[in-house]
Amino acid sequence: MTGGFYRYRLTIEYDGGPYHGWQRQPGLPSVQEHVEDAIRALTQERAETVAAGRTDAGVHAAGQVIHADLSREWKAHDLRQGLNFYLRREAISVLDVAPVPEGFHARFSARLRRYRYRILNRKAPPALDRGRVWHVPAGLSLEPMRESAALLAGQHDFTSFRASECQAKSPVKTLDKLTVTQMEDVICFDLEARSFLHHMVRNIVGTLALTGRGKWTPEDVAAALAAKDRARGGPTAPPHGLCLMEVVY
Amino acid sequence: MTGGFYRYRLTIEYDGGPYHGWQRQPGLPSVQEHVEDAIRALTQERAETVAAGRTDAGVHAAGQVIHADLSREWKAHDLRQGLNFYLRREAISVLDVAPVPEGFHARFSARLRRYRYRILNRKAPPALDRGRVWHVPAGLSLEPMRESAALLAGQHDFTSFRASECQAKSPVKTLDKLTVTQMEDVICFDLEARSFLHHMVRNIVGTLALTGRGKWTPEDVAAALAAKDRARGGPTAPPHGLCLMEVVY
Repeated sequence: MTGGFYRYRLTIEYDGGPYHGWQRQPGLPSVQEHVEDAIRALTQERAETVAAGRTDAGVHAAGQVIHADLSREWKAHDLRQGLNFYLRREAISVLDVAPVPEGFHARFSARLRRYRYRILNRKAPPALDRGRVWHVPAGLSLEPMRESAALLAGQHDFTSFRASECQAKSPVKTLDKLTVTQMEDVICFDLEARSFLHHMVRNIVGTLALTGRGKWTPEDVAAALAAKDRARGGPTAPPHGLCLMEVVY
Repeated sequence: MTGGFYRYRLTIEYDGGPYHGWQRQPGLPSVQEHVEDAIRALTQERAETVAAGRTDAGVHAAGQVIHADLSREWKAHDLRQGLNFYLRREAISVLDVAPVPEGFHARFSARLRRYRYRILNRKAPPALDRGRVWHVPAGLSLEPMRESAALLAGQHDFTSFRASECQAKSPVKTLDKLTVTQMEDVICFDLEARSFLHHMVRNIVGTLALTGRGKWTPEDVAAALAAKDRARGGPTAPPHGLCLMEVVY
């Protein structure tokens, strides 16, 4: 440390179901609030945390990354074990803690974010995966979804897949990966990019699902992308099928 | 139908967490009670169901099979959709319905049952898989667990791995399969047999975990098996890591 504080990187897993998203909001339970409360209970310090991805209400994380600054030095192991003790009643777990240089920033230093969206494509609703998958009872064909995914991969102006509340400066993003795979009745959408627009993953999946059902063709997806108009994009897939898998620095 | 009734085979999935097991018990929520209530709400008939595996409290099912007799004939699709409607608030889903001959018996006609037990082997507790895995923070080595598993596979007197309340006539069972695999920090035990003794899977996994931690050797497991004495077997692994995957007829 040189600036008078110790910066820690925390990798955390959570079930988004019980929370109104990552970000602290007055009067609503959030992951950030619980994590910051645990830090305070353990360290007696009020640390503010910064997350790589401000996941929406209902969205899960298998590898969210955040940073927090403390005035005292901690052993990574003690910090992880202590935080997990205070989080024991929550669906939040600290997987890893590491000291990082003060130049490290969970949000701005991220080079790649990986998201996974899962659809359960069968008639019967989920029992074991309730709240973890989007249940689509109507049959979805893989091929048109894959063809459409190939059209969206790469660098584009994603205005048609951007929430109106999105605060990003530019709608141009580079989707380094967008694959569609199926294992039994689960269809998996894996997406990678340095950063995403607000609701971008859910808007893309909602649109691809339209092609899977035969309501849209891959050409319609290309036209929607080219229109640079949110009104031309497909619907937003529900949050609970989405999981922030990993952040790479 | 010849006997004046129509027999149906139902394949169901459930999260064992909210229920006190499959079997109906006075004053306690059970999967059987909810399924029979749904049958009654839909068909106006009080059908008694018989399950292939009477899973304990907390144990999950991805492919439990049951049968039920109705006096009226139903289309399989209507029965499944109707039951799922009445089960919509429960963590129970009817995956498949099929008419079967009256000689079909969910419990006695089963030729093979497949169970999976999952251990999450990492320091941090589970957030996404809470209630679905047994969390073992101490490191487990695969090799001794695999060696011990090989000793238990095949036909044996499993008295040392049998709950005292077990009602089976004979303690001799044939484990057709017992494999131990690892994917990242999840260790999977896959077991197949025509039938199992009460708590047999959980007692085997509890014992194998002792060898994974180095507290027992595979030779200790062989000695425990040979002793035919429950007091010589290892501890019972917790129920929530266990899932009845499939029943084959």
